[in-house]
Amino acid sequence: MNKTSVIQEMDLKYNLHSWSAQAGLNPHVITKAEGIYFWNEEGERFYDMSSQLVNMNIGHGNKKVIQAIKDQADKLPFIGPAFALDVRAEAAKKVVEVAPANMKKVFFTNSGAEANENAIKMARMYTGRYKMFSAYRAYHGATYGAANLTGEPRRFASEPGIAGFVKFVGPYAYRGPIEFKNEEEASKYYLTLLREQIEYEGSETIAAIFQESVVGTNGILIPPKGWMQGVRDLCDEFGIMMVCDEVMAGWGRTGEWFAVNNWNVQPDMITFAKGSTCGYIPLGGVLVNGKIADHFNKNTLICGLTYSAHPMGCAAACATIDVYKEENLIQKSKEMGVVLGEILEEMKEKHASVGDVRYIGLFSAIELVKDRNSKEPLVPYGKDPDGIMKKILGMLREKGFWNYSHENIIIVAPPLIIKKDELRDAMKIMDNVLDFVDEMMDE
Amino acid sequence: MNKTSVIQEMDLKYNLHSWSAQAGLNPHVITKAEGIYFWNEEGERFYDMSSQLVNMNIGHGNKKVIQAIKDQADKLPFIGPAFALDVRAEAAKKVVEVAPANMKKVFFTNSGAEANENAIKMARMYTGRYKMFSAYRAYHGATYGAANLTGEPRRFASEPGIAGFVKFVGPYAYRGPIEFKNEEEASKYYLTLLREQIEYEGSETIAAIFQESVVGTNGILIPPKGWMQGVRDLCDEFGIMMVCDEVMAGWGRTGEWFAVNNWNVQPDMITFAKGSTCGYIPLGGVLVNGKIADHFNKNTLICGLTYSAHPMGCAAACATIDVYKEENLIQKSKEMGVVLGEILEEMKEKHASVGDVRYIGLFSAIELVKDRNSKEPLVPYGKDPDGIMKKILGMLREKGFWNYSHENIIIVAPPLIIKKDELRDAMKIMDNVLDFVDEMMDE
Ligand SMILES: Cc1ncc(COP(=O)(O)O)c(C=O)c1O
Ligand SMILES: Cc1ncc(COP(=O)(O)O)c(C=O)c1O
Repeated sequence: MNKTSVIQEMDLKYNLHSWSAQAGLNPHVITKAEGIYFWNEEGERFYDMSSQLVNMNIGHGNKKVIQAIKDQADKLPFIGPAFALDVRAEAAKKVVEVAPANMKKVFFTNSGAEANENAIKMARMYTGRYKMFSAYRAYHGATYGAANLTGEPRRFASEPGIAGFVKFVGPYAYRGPIEFKNEEEASKYYLTLLREQIEYEGSETIAAIFQESVVGTNGILIPPKGWMQGVRDLCDEFGIMMVCDEVMAGWGRTGEWFAVNNWNVQPDMITFAKGSTCGYIPLGGVLVNGKIADHFNKNTLICGLTYSAHPMGCAAACATIDVYKEENLIQKSKEMGVVLGEILEEMKEKHASVGDVRYIGLFSAIELVKDRNSKEPLVPYGKDPDGIMKKILGMLREKGFWNYSHENIIIVAPPLIIKKDELRDAMKIMDNVLDFVDEMMDE
Repeated sequence: MNKTSVIQEMDLKYNLHSWSAQAGLNPHVITKAEGIYFWNEEGERFYDMSSQLVNMNIGHGNKKVIQAIKDQADKLPFIGPAFALDVRAEAAKKVVEVAPANMKKVFFTNSGAEANENAIKMARMYTGRYKMFSAYRAYHGATYGAANLTGEPRRFASEPGIAGFVKFVGPYAYRGPIEFKNEEEASKYYLTLLREQIEYEGSETIAAIFQESVVGTNGILIPPKGWMQGVRDLCDEFGIMMVCDEVMAGWGRTGEWFAVNNWNVQPDMITFAKGSTCGYIPLGGVLVNGKIADHFNKNTLICGLTYSAHPMGCAAACATIDVYKEENLIQKSKEMGVVLGEILEEMKEKHASVGDVRYIGLFSAIELVKDRNSKEPLVPYGKDPDGIMKKILGMLREKGFWNYSHENIIIVAPPLIIKKDELRDAMKIMDNVLDFVDEMMDE
């Protein structure tokens, strides 16, 4: 028995792994990761084309971040959240400085789910209202509040649902009920629906509208022109907090520090996690605007967690933000996103199985269909009866391309440090696999 | 302006701190921590008599844990939760090995709240039932599900409550509605109430009974003899999952690896966090028994988080568990707990303001009263009208004794590495401050 199987066996004997029946698992044993690559114990190398779970924006093994972690470990790995601390002050300052200009303070958590949990509470405390709006197809995390914001099946394990959590239909023009002439028309259509729902739910009862600035796992759904401003206007009209979940879309992923910047709109709160430390140490948080920050000067913030603003997470965040700046990664994401977009459009031209491609910065999706005209998804909703999607992912992985899929959609979101030739090389693998998908459809 | 105030100012400008109105904050700036002490920037040293938030069991600055963190940072600071990994396998194995014998697998999270969130979901999935029982006075975390388990005011920011979350009255003999002759009688009384509530809520609808094995923040409420076995029996009779929250009470705090061991009872799940890494890196988790583990072989575990079984947290946990063993800290906690108990009993003898002292291992509380006979609390429930409790804490801190209080109760829970003379020296400070409290009462 080689060492790999010893580790895998021990891992599976004692660990429960996420989102799976455990019996079918056969996880790769990972031994090394560097830049845009990681290796399993057989020495096979993979392009990390989803940046793990779209968190590894600066790439693996960044020396500066690792050094910052080691230094903080030597200095002061933990002190309780009530105390002030150099690195706690600096991390908060750095996060606020790169956020939209109206953001004034941050409440740090460990994760994206915890960030959304605290945003729910802050919206309630600030507005005195209790209802939460969020979109179908959004994912906001797996703790009870975040899961109840979530508009897809991963919510179901957190039901019975919480009173006052209401779902609306967010823009998804490719699968809209009508063909839209342009983005503006699509926005108008979906905003009309949203306004009606706000009115019929009782605008004065609604604390917040949560949305992923760009819907991530559920298919890189990029809001059409006019949508973000439209939501902002509705929130202003009705005194509702606009909360952007940037756990996945933030931190350069879309070619801007925060995705909402693409539309020059300022939300009232931003929740974040992943890219803030790229996962080197767990960290998340809620950014709040000046009014909300001021509210909690006099009013008790009824939020707390043992590891709020953890020194190790704060140290990792400081270094990570420096890396984004020094390596100019936000701009690079934008530039390389143009290249990725070209490649994806070529693929759409070439492959009959590609119904739609969507991309912004280095955040992209390939939506697979049985038929371009009918747009029938390659696999029915919530199912993969013949294991087709699994097979496609398997082929990609066999060729050294690691990413993940959701329903009939393949996510491509490499680290922001990827170079043009690396991107082209990796996407050639995708091209080959899509040839196979085309063929399979012809049969 | 000295450096301290620069850091404090920056900290307060950009950070939102837990459980507070921000305007009144004047946090110490901490620069150093070592063993049972930490220092502020003025060079003042404090005994860490609550182990921060009852997490720093092995003490600050442990070289072995720090080295493990640094090594893992160099090797592989992050890889997604779907992969197998040496340190992920080892951490799970080590945790399972020190847990009660019926515990077979672990699902790792970032925090105590996330641990309880996932235990809620697993209990539901395993039983197919939806109701959750938990106790008044328990604290289980501040995310929606964990907060709805919580039986004290920190829950209120997470209401409207979740359907099916039901509270029972846990044992608290000192403030029971009658005088109990002995522990067994108290258990019988509270178990009778619990059984009735189970029957009237519909036993076949109840997924789990959550409890802190020893209630922590709400006053170190130690279950009377017979209670734990009684709950176990009720759970067996009705097919209910018995979940012990050991986030605070676990990891040697009570003189056993897990507090529930004090009563030789095996729950179905244990949730943990704090002491598993002592906060050097955030980590939490859910331990499950063999039946639950097996259930998720075939059935999908609908739980997940980006940072489940984070490599850095796992590395810290491995080293921390080694430290507990090598330094014999579980046994030391038991032995030093005897000393602490003696000191506390002396204080109760001496100070009229001390209504009750409760202790198990190095987990203890001093309950302050206006009058021993009436047991009237020193401050009314939920209030501190004349700032008395604040003043008491302030006096302790001024003399270098750092801990926290809750309502009329002072928590004392030093790191498990504390030595006898250190404990006696520190508790002399408490003795002095209690003199003042006695005087104040006389006035
Ligand atoms: C948009 C979004 N929000 C929230 C979360 C939850 O974050 P975490 O897994 O850190 O709890 C995720 C995780 O993928 C996410 O993509
Ligand atoms: C018993 C208990 N459970 C759960 C929690 C929540 O843990 P965390 O703050 O890590 O979310 C705490 C925190 O103090 C606790 O004491």
